[in-house]
Amino acid sequence: MNEKTINIARKFKGRLISIDLIHVRLKNGRKARREIVRHPGAVAALCRRPDGKFVFVRQFRKPLERNILEIVAGTREPGESPAVCARREILEETGYKAVLLRRLGSIYSAPGFCDERIEIYFAEVIPSVIKGRADHDEDISVFCFDARKIEIMLASGKIIDAKTLAAWTLYKHRRGNK
Amino acid sequence: MNEKTINIARKFKGRLISIDLIHVRLKNGRKARREIVRHPGAVAALCRRPDGKFVFVRQFRKPLERNILEIVAGTREPGESPAVCARREILEETGYKAVLLRRLGSIYSAPGFCDERIEIYFAEVIPSVIKGRADHDEDISVFCFDARKIEIMLASGKIIDAKTLAAWTLYKHRRGNK
Repeated sequence: MNEKTINIARKFKGRLISIDLIHVRLKNGRKARREIVRHPGAVAALCRRPDGKFVFVRQFRKPLERNILEIVAGTREPGESPAVCARREILEETGYKAVLLRRLGSIYSAPGFCDERIEIYFAEVIPSVIKGRADHDEDISVFCFDARKIEIMLASGKIIDAKTLAAWTLYKHRRGNK
Repeated sequence: MNEKTINIARKFKGRLISIDLIHVRLKNGRKARREIVRHPGAVAALCRRPDGKFVFVRQFRKPLERNILEIVAGTREPGESPAVCARREILEETGYKAVLLRRLGSIYSAPGFCDERIEIYFAEVIPSVIKGRADHDEDISVFCFDARKIEIMLASGKIIDAKTLAAWTLYKHRRGNK
């Protein structure tokens, strides 16, 4: 192990995240401190409709004080598998239903200071007859774009969410779909 | 504004990050709580050598308890511009010097709960005669790969860092270099 834990102190315990302050011993014998955000883990899904358009959501993000465009994503509930979580979030956030779900990989959103791992899926979706219900504190709009429009948005800096950009990379390379 | 702040309480103040607990009023009149990580901002740089190989760094990340492969990145120092920070981090972490620096865009690593913004650069680099000095608490190894090897690693799940995946998408689309 490269950084041996000397001690851990929990500095904040929230409903979503917690903070641990860890003192470590480095390989060179020195000590260092690490401030680490603990997160329960999340899933994200790049959803494609039968007409080839991809489903994006636009929502207000309080940390940024603005609305941004992202793929579907959500935090895993206790004991929930990533695939079940992905299907639930797709329905809740977009009103579409996943008829095919393929895992593209796992990513870490901010490995320098946070343990959040996001399982990334590709989903083929169709409109659902059963409407999902977003969390009471979410206000989400759905937008659909074809691949050409997405690549124009990428090139012009319109997509700023790291997991959305990462998912696009994984989708293009995992499917040999460049 | 979609979520009006009712009150903010700082719950943790670290050397790198802080935590704010914010109570908000939603558009529908309900209240909600937001746990938000405050981060000073960072830069990352996708570096390419004259022989076409890209420079990656491998380092231990305590939140993950493992070594991972990433592009060069670092936290901005107070008052430091992103471009100056990028040049400094490239030299410190890799021993290469940026002879060209081009901004690819900005990304948010975890917009659901964290305000970290990362300025992403593409850099053309050459070996430096002046050696950089990594932070005393960093232990970094440098690896260089050509684009073909990187795309194989992307396809096989070897790259799990969100900013690295995001930077690759931005590089491919911004440069018309698919």
